[in-house]
Amino acid sequence: MSLATSVLEGNRLSLARLLTHIENDTSEGRAALDELFVHTGQAHLIGVTGAPGTGKSSLVNHLARYFRKPEGAGAPSKVGIIAVDPSSPFTGGAILGDRVRMRDLAGDTGVFIRSMASRGSLGGLASATSGMVQALDAAGYRIILIETVGAGQAEVDIARLAHTTLVVEAPGLGDEIQAIKAGILEIADILVVNKADRPGVENTERALLSMLQLAHPAPRIYWHDGQLMRIESQPQPDRGGDFWQPPVLRTVATEGVGISELGDAILRHREHLQTSGGWERREHARLQAELDTLLKAGLVSRWQKAASPAVYSDLVDRVLARQISPWRAVEMLLDGGRT
Amino acid sequence: MSLATSVLEGNRLSLARLLTHIENDTSEGRAALDELFVHTGQAHLIGVTGAPGTGKSSLVNHLARYFRKPEGAGAPSKVGIIAVDPSSPFTGGAILGDRVRMRDLAGDTGVFIRSMASRGSLGGLASATSGMVQALDAAGYRIILIETVGAGQAEVDIARLAHTTLVVEAPGLGDEIQAIKAGILEIADILVVNKADRPGVENTERALLSMLQLAHPAPRIYWHDGQLMRIESQPQPDRGGDFWQPPVLRTVATEGVGISELGDAILRHREHLQTSGGWERREHARLQAELDTLLKAGLVSRWQKAASPAVYSDLVDRVLARQISPWRAVEMLLDGGRT
Repeated sequence: MSLATSVLEGNRLSLARLLTHIENDTSEGRAALDELFVHTGQAHLIGVTGAPGTGKSSLVNHLARYFRKPEGAGAPSKVGIIAVDPSSPFTGGAILGDRVRMRDLAGDTGVFIRSMASRGSLGGLASATSGMVQALDAAGYRIILIETVGAGQAEVDIARLAHTTLVVEAPGLGDEIQAIKAGILEIADILVVNKADRPGVENTERALLSMLQLAHPAPRIYWHDGQLMRIESQPQPDRGGDFWQPPVLRTVATEGVGISELGDAILRHREHLQTSGGWERREHARLQAELDTLLKAGLVSRWQKAASPAVYSDLVDRVLARQISPWRAVEMLLDGGRT
Repeated sequence: MSLATSVLEGNRLSLARLLTHIENDTSEGRAALDELFVHTGQAHLIGVTGAPGTGKSSLVNHLARYFRKPEGAGAPSKVGIIAVDPSSPFTGGAILGDRVRMRDLAGDTGVFIRSMASRGSLGGLASATSGMVQALDAAGYRIILIETVGAGQAEVDIARLAHTTLVVEAPGLGDEIQAIKAGILEIADILVVNKADRPGVENTERALLSMLQLAHPAPRIYWHDGQLMRIESQPQPDRGGDFWQPPVLRTVATEGVGISELGDAILRHREHLQTSGGWERREHARLQAELDTLLKAGLVSRWQKAASPAVYSDLVDRVLARQISPWRAVEMLLDGGRT
């Protein structure tokens, strides 16, 4: 039986093996993904990003439990979790996080957890995550939570894979930290203030709302006695014309507080995407981006097979000696190594 | 007179125009860089990275002044500053920073300052920075300070352009923040604890040293009464075999405290690179990476010119309909669109 068939039949060990193949970008992994792709497209991809210390892992664990409750009369969804930690492997964060998770969700065979701590290239990390999402999707996991450590472009790229993106904040991390989030706020569908039992929760909420105002011109926010009273819906032109005002929700993940409200907001966002055409637009953008990445890699690998290493290294030497510019060298290489 | 010639002759207005061409990736910019490349290779590239709030901009301004003092009997070096802020443009940080800088360094025609706030692709940002560095190098700027807002992969990529990389930390930003720096510490040649008049400076210093220990196995660090007594030199295998123990230095940039010690450490690092062969190794790695990036872009652009848009969009549709996988679609595209 092929690896892909075994994954389709629900074999967890085969799924784990496939994810390792995908992480290592092996030909066996690529062949299996090729076979599995026609079975994808059913899962709701939920990105969860935020700085270290915001309590993302707890939140993801509790959300996994929320989605294990049956929707309507049917069986509960299978839930996949992919935790991506692009920081250096010597922190050991991903492995530790994995163990904490294993303990929290132990015994539930409807949950599959995988973490990835990689220093690989950005493209590699996003592409491995994308492959893992496809494997879980084909294996019947209808909810896939993708957790990343926020702030950098890598996380933004990975978050763009998702249908619904949660940005997690916590009180007391300081205004200076908020600034770095400006970019990531633009991709947020739902903002979560976790650890909301800590002092300063109102300040954090207010900072997020101010940044949303900056990110999305002319929002309507009403304050009364220091409390947020109303936010009217308004267009987000960069998300394709579907109107969705990112709500700001409070949670205390370690106590399970606010989780069901957050889960409900995620389901509302899914419904919104499905009725507004946003779902198709995001699928289109995501798959086209993946196609373009693979195309680039394919072009380079075919060129390398045909190219002469001697000509290449001679041109590198001439660039180093400042005899020709890198631009000129590339033109020479593309024109078949004529020097 | 060509733009390149005018830049070589020291015309600041032409240099500013060229940098705009480079930022916008115009053909005029590329032609000028092609012409200027043979005049590059003289500058010492110094990367300065750190989280928001660490006081990088002040530090960079004071370092610029330090390097404007003549070395030996000669004239003072011309100093270029490139400030890269990959966060969203609506924060306005880069523009504000630019104005503060202009005021600090006003009237010194030996200093050229340029900031770039871009949401462009990662490749684009690193490649624009690389082009700007080459333009300043050719224009005779012997010291080029490249300032980035730390944490993400984008900053690491940009820092890799440099001969000497400074990672700036400040007391009181919290241990959680430190964690995200693990990756960036590996590329640090010099660690700076700025705002060293704040409480907690010893803790920050200790945290950095612990992380250095993790990053570089088996360092020799001696403590006495809570003070660092000695760090012995040790190999950093990933920097090509040249031995350099990153020093940890305290500064209070706003008061100019510790700047000349920091400047001296930078000059020591340059000397170390030049005597150990590290300079050539870094130049080689940098130019080869640039060549590879340009090669990829060139392959894609040539392929696009030859490809059929109808075949491409038909294949995208078939991927979206889950009829074929992205891998299969790319193979079809590379094989000339045979479906």
